Amino acid sequence: MSRPFNFSAGPAAMPVDVLQEAAAEMLDWHGSGMSVMEMSHRGKEFGAILEAAERDLRELLAVPEHFRILFMQGGGLAENAIVPLNLSRGESVDFVISGSWSQKSFKEAGRYCSARVAASNEADGHTSLPDPASWQLDPGARYVHLCSNETINGVETHELPDLKALGSNAPLVIDFSSHVASRPVDWSRVGLAFGGAQKNLGPAGVTLVVVREDLLGHAMKSCPSAFDYKTVADNRSMYNTPPTFAIYMAGLTFQWLKRQAEGALTGVAAMEARNIAKAALLYGYIDQSAFYSNQVAAHCRSRMNVPFFLHDESRNEAFLAGAKAAGLLQLKGHKSVGGMRASIYNAMPIEGVQALVAYMRDFEKTQA
Amino acid sequence: MSRPFNFSAGPAAMPVDVLQEAAAEMLDWHGSGMSVMEMSHRGKEFGAILEAAERDLRELLAVPEHFRILFMQGGGLAENAIVPLNLSRGESVDFVISGSWSQKSFKEAGRYCSARVAASNEADGHTSLPDPASWQLDPGARYVHLCSNETINGVETHELPDLKALGSNAPLVIDFSSHVASRPVDWSRVGLAFGGAQKNLGPAGVTLVVVREDLLGHAMKSCPSAFDYKTVADNRSMYNTPPTFAIYMAGLTFQWLKRQAEGALTGVAAMEARNIAKAALLYGYIDQSAFYSNQVAAHCRSRMNVPFFLHDESRNEAFLAGAKAAGLLQLKGHKSVGGMRASIYNAMPIEGVQALVAYMRDFEKTQA
Repeated sequence: MSRPFNFSAGPAAMPVDVLQEAAAEMLDWHGSGMSVMEMSHRGKEFGAILEAAERDLRELLAVPEHFRILFMQGGGLAENAIVPLNLSRGESVDFVISGSWSQKSFKEAGRYCSARVAASNEADGHTSLPDPASWQLDPGARYVHLCSNETINGVETHELPDLKALGSNAPLVIDFSSHVASRPVDWSRVGLAFGGAQKNLGPAGVTLVVVREDLLGHAMKSCPSAFDYKTVADNRSMYNTPPTFAIYMAGLTFQWLKRQAEGALTGVAAMEARNIAKAALLYGYIDQSAFYSNQVAAHCRSRMNVPFFLHDESRNEAFLAGAKAAGLLQLKGHKSVGGMRASIYNAMPIEGVQALVAYMRDFEKTQA
Repeated sequence: MSRPFNFSAGPAAMPVDVLQEAAAEMLDWHGSGMSVMEMSHRGKEFGAILEAAERDLRELLAVPEHFRILFMQGGGLAENAIVPLNLSRGESVDFVISGSWSQKSFKEAGRYCSARVAASNEADGHTSLPDPASWQLDPGARYVHLCSNETINGVETHELPDLKALGSNAPLVIDFSSHVASRPVDWSRVGLAFGGAQKNLGPAGVTLVVVREDLLGHAMKSCPSAFDYKTVADNRSMYNTPPTFAIYMAGLTFQWLKRQAEGALTGVAAMEARNIAKAALLYGYIDQSAFYSNQVAAHCRSRMNVPFFLHDESRNEAFLAGAKAAGLLQLKGHKSVGGMRASIYNAMPIEGVQALVAYMRDFEKTQA
């Protein structure tokens, strides 16, 4: 079938197969006589959906047994408060500022604890990443926060820091909203990872939290019960009514991910190979062009979010209008950065990036 | 089409028309080339969906202009913390205890402010409602909390109290999760109303808050930004990424509600007429039977949730198995109450209640 290619930064394109499955069983899930939306979350049908989603995600991301998988609500912005409410104990925490999202997280955390900047790339306009060896870590910090992919700035951490090797015993908290499931995670370096689903996992409205068990049970008194990780974990993500349909859609996406193969690779490893190829194609074209540019340092360019600029910004509107006519949607850059942004998450096939590059080449020619 | 009748207390049955519409436009919303799940929440397409949903709901519930309509996340259980975080200022608040949900709300509020019980029906096992004239209201309370329909206990407030007439200037906060849109709301008596969508409005994962404007802007310091009503209102429910698909489904449900007519009545008034008829049929049958019983006082029986008991409880499993075979789903009572519960929300047609009564009659006969 011929659908446009959708480069939205999130909520973002989903696999067509997943949307078709959801449409087909909308009125009757597996002979139950109910839509997934109509099921009691306490019934055996939804119980099976939730259990499968958790199991598949654990397998896909190779989440060790001593981590709990939680499905929550509120997205990354709510987690900016929920993480310090659960982990900071009102004490000191360290932040690595690498772009817009980590700045927001830092600001919100400061309402609950003593949040410090351990490193920042603000001086270069969030286009680089400070070497972990240069981070000024507080030995007493309750955790170190890192946004491992900055959606707006297009800056990705390609190797998670080894805090122990840097002399810190603090757990690393990563906001992996916009690159979760696009590559493997080295859990030996992570204490907690959180992410809104709406980029790589499913629809907006469900938030994934993967947390090491020893970090549970230290919530501040002011933490709402529904957002206390221990309460959520003890109730298997059903303390409050979970966002059942969003979890179901994420579960279908996990099944889709498990079916993906690239040569001998499957699942997330297959996605990583594809994502490397997609990013190489797009950055490669931008870098050889005198018409477009990307300003992020090569070592930390995001495989997921590719901001780029036309050298002649007066052509922006024409570029976007032509793109839309060519079936290339939602390419406008974030208002804080300007220009364009192509988000090329798991659900974007290489054909979409090829079509984008072809359009960019054509547009460049017509402007010569 | 022949679907089973689904009596789930929530997530609950949805109108078949709404499910069919969602399935039909799952891959392409109105020629946009995108599923609603794939749209940027900042784009004009989703903007139109959100705006229509808000406008339709305002019309359906006749929400006055000086109230704001917010779409949030976390459900009623999260609101149990979010309401006191926004309204209590850490001071005194009054609670009317009428069943399981108000008890939970009371317990959670006590973590943020001085929560007092102004009235309670605990002594009669939550089967009655204390007359507002008997409530012991604190003149200094920041608000008075009332769960206007107790889903688990089947207790409904059929006339909202006039707090001013009772000598109180506190705003009334109602948890109307399980009867919103089943009847009109007298907004002159309400300061804030909240409800999870998963009973009468749409799928789980979106929470409706309707709040009088003068109550905004008093959040406690520890209130997460994503749950500060003023922040949410100022950002038109888009401070964090909203649960876009759940809002879209709620919007389709609002459109369905607007299309409903019963004689000269339309919308919520039409639903109320139907809900009165459905409840009368079911309670009428139960009351004339020596085999079944409902223990709630007549003046506060819920039109939405009808708990009932078989006098011989050893027949419960046989009753449920036979009901399922007859296409009558999810009738098991809440574990804290036992017995059966028929939730007959807006999406349940009178034919469903007729089928239930017919089955109950048949079951009674076979047991004679």
